[in-house]
Amino acid sequence: MKLYDAAASGNCHKVRLLLSMLDIAHEVISVSLPNMAQKTPDHMARNPLGLVPVIEDGDVTIYDSQAILVYLASKHGGENWLPGDPVGRAMVQQWLSFAVNELWHGPALARAKLLFGRDIDLGRAQASAEMSLSIMNQHLGRNDRLALGRPTIADIACYPYSALAEDGEISLAPYDALAAWFARIKALPGFVTMPGLK
Amino acid sequence: MKLYDAAASGNCHKVRLLLSMLDIAHEVISVSLPNMAQKTPDHMARNPLGLVPVIEDGDVTIYDSQAILVYLASKHGGENWLPGDPVGRAMVQQWLSFAVNELWHGPALARAKLLFGRDIDLGRAQASAEMSLSIMNQHLGRNDRLALGRPTIADIACYPYSALAEDGEISLAPYDALAAWFARIKALPGFVTMPGLK
Repeated sequence: MKLYDAAASGNCHKVRLLLSMLDIAHEVISVSLPNMAQKTPDHMARNPLGLVPVIEDGDVTIYDSQAILVYLASKHGGENWLPGDPVGRAMVQQWLSFAVNELWHGPALARAKLLFGRDIDLGRAQASAEMSLSIMNQHLGRNDRLALGRPTIADIACYPYSALAEDGEISLAPYDALAAWFARIKALPGFVTMPGLK
Repeated sequence: MKLYDAAASGNCHKVRLLLSMLDIAHEVISVSLPNMAQKTPDHMARNPLGLVPVIEDGDVTIYDSQAILVYLASKHGGENWLPGDPVGRAMVQQWLSFAVNELWHGPALARAKLLFGRDIDLGRAQASAEMSLSIMNQHLGRNDRLALGRPTIADIACYPYSALAEDGEISLAPYDALAAWFARIKALPGFVTMPGLK
């Protein structure tokens, strides 16, 4: 399996985490975002959105970090990381959508502005981030994991950009339950870190 | 089953479409968005994000339109609308994520600004919409359906806000393959319309 990866990308880190936790052999191909290598015709043929991560597994190509998590968990994780029953699937999907919308348009974009100079409305991203982190914190005050009583790809999908929020100058100090959940994620076998994770 | 619904919401329409196509008995409870009924404590207990749609099915409550589609398709649709194999699941997830991110932050937000006066950067939403619709159009030039060789919840999730793009003053004229796909969706048994769909 090949992972088209960028070290500073939280979306790529979701994939790196699950590859490591499931101990899946793979080759990492670095895509230089400062050089816009994600927008070359070769890469756009892999992902029409011109983004990382992408994986290639034989003749299967998958983009979108949530879709890659779904693929890896279904193929290599049995029922553990992504269940097959309707309620379990839906509970995981709620948080995959939260990762795609609330966490991307909140803490991830604030970070993209401050670390990479992306053209973003910083105030809007930070305000949105505070609402989203507060919702997660409330939920995690009553639940050890986001979707089910065990770690799933919902936790993996929501971890990097919430844990990297301070890169976007969003304080994590108000969120005790979130901090405890970060610690539980870090304690999972196979956890790997990335720059910016405390 | 209860659907907490708003007639003008494209996210609710995704759910209305699949409920109709799968012929699932349900009760509709109208939530008045102009009166902010989606932000009452009762509704926030159903969905901490304070949004519609929400479904209640016995003691199961699910929010997020993509998660609801996953639930309904898994429980009532067999393998037809959402497959169980890793590649099929991932292909569908790519487009669920596209619905959540690209279509929401493009055509849906442009429409929300122009129809409902939401606080949105219209130029940014319209520019983003044109990129996203162009990507869909290219893909649909080579494929009859978004994710697999048959209709899936990927098509349902991406249909309302792309088909309603003109409500956000985004022209659909350049997109022939998209228009043909709209017609194929409308031809599906059980299709229902909503205000704004041509």
